[in-house]
Amino acid sequence: DILEELVAHLQPKVLAGQRVLVTAGPTFEAIDPVRGITNHSSGKMGFAIARAAHEAGADVTLVAGPVALRTPRGVRRVDVQSALQMHAAVMAEVERATVFVAAAAVADWRPAQAAAHKLKKDGSGQPPPLAFVENPDILATVAGLPRARRGELYCVGFAAESHDLLAHAQAKRARKGVPLLVGNIGPATFGRDDNALLLVDEHEVVEFPPAPKITLARQLVAEIARRLRAEHAH
Amino acid sequence: DILEELVAHLQPKVLAGQRVLVTAGPTFEAIDPVRGITNHSSGKMGFAIARAAHEAGADVTLVAGPVALRTPRGVRRVDVQSALQMHAAVMAEVERATVFVAAAAVADWRPAQAAAHKLKKDGSGQPPPLAFVENPDILATVAGLPRARRGELYCVGFAAESHDLLAHAQAKRARKGVPLLVGNIGPATFGRDDNALLLVDEHEVVEFPPAPKITLARQLVAEIARRLRAEHAH
Repeated sequence: DILEELVAHLQPKVLAGQRVLVTAGPTFEAIDPVRGITNHSSGKMGFAIARAAHEAGADVTLVAGPVALRTPRGVRRVDVQSALQMHAAVMAEVERATVFVAAAAVADWRPAQAAAHKLKKDGSGQPPPLAFVENPDILATVAGLPRARRGELYCVGFAAESHDLLAHAQAKRARKGVPLLVGNIGPATFGRDDNALLLVDEHEVVEFPPAPKITLARQLVAEIARRLRAEHAH
Repeated sequence: DILEELVAHLQPKVLAGQRVLVTAGPTFEAIDPVRGITNHSSGKMGFAIARAAHEAGADVTLVAGPVALRTPRGVRRVDVQSALQMHAAVMAEVERATVFVAAAAVADWRPAQAAAHKLKKDGSGQPPPLAFVENPDILATVAGLPRARRGELYCVGFAAESHDLLAHAQAKRARKGVPLLVGNIGPATFGRDDNALLLVDEHEVVEFPPAPKITLARQLVAEIARRLRAEHAH
């Protein structure tokens, strides 16, 4: 509505001049032409971040897994299905980005081979064997790029956890080598319009209490902008 | 719109007095609290059939897997996630049904155990072992009920195939023990508003050329009604 448009328009342009790359949604890892492995991510948090970054003046590209969400106005969108496709799209786009926000729930594993035909029950009662291989770690790969290590590409990771959020978020931040890790209680928030976030960086832990995802996204954008300014002030 | 409402209202009441149970959509088989196995079924065909059956004067119950579709007006809806839940919902509802249309794309297999916590990469590069068990065959179970065998419950199955549609549909009709089997080319139709159907019964093969799913659903309802009349005329 008009009020919402006005609020969006009046957001401070704290990311002006930044080029922000956001991933969002689940990935779908094909087992055969009809089946696959996916997860409960709705993509709403990532889409809200893309929208908030655009409102804040950034040039935004959104790499989205299979979700039925409308593209935020002014945001460039690249649709993908699998983790391998998301990896390729991110690597193609990240060269020109100055901020990378990995909000997608990327599958850790995929079937080793996708069957060309639909798998059939063979009457034995035994399922066909299914072998898995690990997917590339998109966030760790990007965080390890020379531009990220030189501070020219600020990386933000997400952790969706079913328990022990703070400990997992801190461990994930260290493991992925990113300056900022955002935790959210996955099963409680997937698909909901509300969420609550826990920001973990080198120095502090900041909690955003439950709020609409667009509100949290704007708060997160403000926190990212604050850290970008702090980095450049060093 | 109003024209569509009028068209719906003017459909012949060929299923008046019938109680139709329809399944629709995919199932989601949990691997852990966030991940699971699903398929590309959009649920649109099953929802269209539920709507068309209601337009035709039937009392309609729709058992739906996880889809973001609006419930057709006048249709009672039961939401489920997994094949086991769909099986339980169907068995609870089917006692009072006179027609059962199994349009859902039910997972053949599920993980033997859903993990209570989100599975983690352990650094070995090896995925956690994942064992599968076969799900109950909802359609074959319903088709084997005494009421179905006595002709008091008319069963319609669906086959989504990636190749050899006619042969697979005929084989599935025999294997499931249902009078009518409807084939559709799965990967080409999932999520689309258009479809093309192949009806296979004991005597004949009828092809519905590509059309909007609501049109095909009305044609299918007419074919079901014709067969119900023929059965009762015997």
